[in-house]
Parts: sequence; C-alpha cells; structure tokens
Amino acid sequence: MDDDTANEILDGTYRALCKHGYAELTLQDIADETDKSKASIHYYYDTKEDLFTAFLEFLYGRYTDKVTGVTGASPQARLLSLLDVLLADGEDGPDTEFRTAMLEIRAQGPYNDGIREQLTKFDEFLYGELHSIIEAGIEREEFNEHVDPDLAAEFLTTMISGAHTRRVAVDYSMDRLHETVRTYVEQHLSPEPPEVSH
Amino acid sequence: MDDDTANEILDGTYRALCKHGYAELTLQDIADETDKSKASIHYYYDTKEDLFTAFLEFLYGRYTDKVTGVTGASPQARLLSLLDVLLADGEDGPDTEFRTAMLEIRAQGPYNDGIREQLTKFDEFLYGELHSIIEAGIEREEFNEHVDPDLAAEFLTTMISGAHTRRVAVDYSMDRLHETVRTYVEQHLSPEPPEVSH
Repeated sequence: MDDDTANEILDGTYRALCKHGYAELTLQDIADETDKSKASIHYYYDTKEDLFTAFLEFLYGRYTDKVTGVTGASPQARLLSLLDVLLADGEDGPDTEFRTAMLEIRAQGPYNDGIREQLTKFDEFLYGELHSIIEAGIEREEFNEHVDPDLAAEFLTTMISGAHTRRVAVDYSMDRLHETVRTYVEQHLSPEPPEVSH
Repeated sequence: MDDDTANEILDGTYRALCKHGYAELTLQDIADETDKSKASIHYYYDTKEDLFTAFLEFLYGRYTDKVTGVTGASPQARLLSLLDVLLADGEDGPDTEFRTAMLEIRAQGPYNDGIREQLTKFDEFLYGELHSIIEAGIEREEFNEHVDPDLAAEFLTTMISGAHTRRVAVDYSMDRLHETVRTYVEQHLSPEPPEVSH
C-alpha cells in the first residue's frame, strides 16, 4: 500500500472514530469517510484490531512529533510548555469525541496485545521525555537536587493520564487540572522549598 | 422491587460485566447470572443505561462505606491507609476485568447523563474525603501549613484516576504507582521541606 492510501484510510479512521466511538465502529463506517470500499480496506487490514494497531502507530508518530516540537529556553520552561500542549482544552485541544474514543481504546488494553503494545509506547515515550527534562533541570540547578527524576516523571505521567480520564468521565475542567500540575512543577520541583514559618 | 431482587440483579450485573465487558453486554448476559428472566429484568429497568445508572448507585454505596471505613491514628496515617485501599492490587484489589469494565463505563460519561452524574458523585466524594483529611492534617500541624488543601486534594484525586487508567491501558504496576503517591504525601505534604545542601 502506498503512503497516500494508508494516510487516507487512517485519516478516515480518525473521523469515523470521532463520529461513532470505538465500540460501535465498523469497517463500513471507516469506508464511508474515505473514497475506498469496505472490501479494499479489508484487503489491507484483516480485522478492526489490525487497523487500530496501525492507527495507533500513526497517532504515535504525530504525538512524538508534537512532543519533541515543544521547545523552551530552559528545562523548566520546556516542561511548562509541554504541559500546556498536553493539557490543552477547548479549541487548542482534541475534541471530546476523540478523547472519549481514546479512553474506550485504553479499555481494550488487557484484551488486545497489539493495542496494548502501542499504548505502552505512548506511555513510555512521555515518561522518557519528562524524565530527561527533569534530569536536565536538576543538572542546571533549576530543579531541586533532591528530586528523584524517576518518581517525578512517574508522577507527571500518571497525573496527565488522570487528567484525561477525569476530563472524559466527569467533564472536569482541564484548566483546573492544568493549574494543579503547574503548581506541582513550580512548588515541588523548584530548588527553593516552600517557606515554613515558626 | 424488594431489596433482595435489586441486589440479586445488581450482583449479577457485576459478574456479567466482568465476564463480557460493557460494550458487548446484553440484558440476557445479566439474566444468565441471576435466577431472573431477561423479561423480568427488563420490567425493572427499561434500558441497559437505566440498569447501569442503578448499578453505579449500588457501587457508590459500597465505595463510600469502604472509604469511610478506613481509619487511622492521625490524618496522615488515615491518608496513607486510604491510598493502600484505593491503590490495592493483586488479591486485595478488584479484578482486571472489573477495572477494565469501569474504564469502558467512564468512556460513556460524555454521552449518558445518568452515568456521568453517578461517576461525578464518586469523583466528588473522593475529592471531599481527601480534602477533609488534608485540612485536618494541616490543623494538627502534621502537614505543612502552606499546603493548599484544594490543590492537594485535586492532585491526589487526579493521581488515583491516572493510576487506574494506566493499570488497565498499559498494565502498569499498581505497586509502583502506589510508591509514587506515598512519596508525594511523605515529602510534599510533610511540614519539613526536603533538606537542601549547599
């Protein structure tokens, strides 16, 4: 399959997923969003799972480009910009439909090796990026030298995952969650411990 | 409907949900887990959504009992015990099947008012409990007086949600996540800021 065909099918998958959600989605729904027939999509991808493994691979490429494209004058500035991008809401962020479909796809993790492997790649990539930013910040004495980069990176990865889940499940304001995470970075990673009066 | 009938249907719903997941679940699957017919379940609950709204109400009662049943000699001890309970894994925690089904149900939030309202009750209850424990800890000078109870409670609520999502999506170790959250409580809420050497 050439790249144009692959991209057309995967772009159609994105639109179909936003419209129908994952559980109800059929190959026909995807075909309806492209100029391909259901049979030709089926020719490239045997099952809905195969197509979704490829789709997540495609999103992974976009995701890593987006994350590595975030720059900053210092590790702390880059970390805060990255949080702006990952926790964007409203017009700057993905649609509720897409976030919701992604949560449905996460629930496929335990039952589908291909999907779980792809999701694990996103998780590990984010962890790795956060880890290297935090390490660089400690080295430049921008972050507290007592911060454990492993734990701080786990922490932020888990917070971001929780922010996305609460946004979908209980329609929680991403702005409010964003403020919470920024406070962590500013207060708990910073080299100056909060002032304690006696 | 008497309480016994309701409990039997809702217990059957729990078992059916673990076996089949939410997306594929039918009233017949639930009937198969009880001594009721599909028609009699349908008599009590018009739709699968109605049944799930009642099911989440039933889980909410169990959840609040579990959370309020956690005691501790001090606010910090109670907070750590509560995290033990909420982040339990293996034999002490719910099955992977149940966690996964709950993530699927969370993805229903945007499309189903009844389900979203129930999920919001869980979220608000947990936030409220964490908030009151943190406030009590600050009052007793067990936690740093500069901690903002609103932000710290948001923080922990979001972390717990993220821990559950990562556990399902990428089979991340709950023990590891648990350690991360404990470290937050011990290091960042404690009245002694981490020692900074010069």
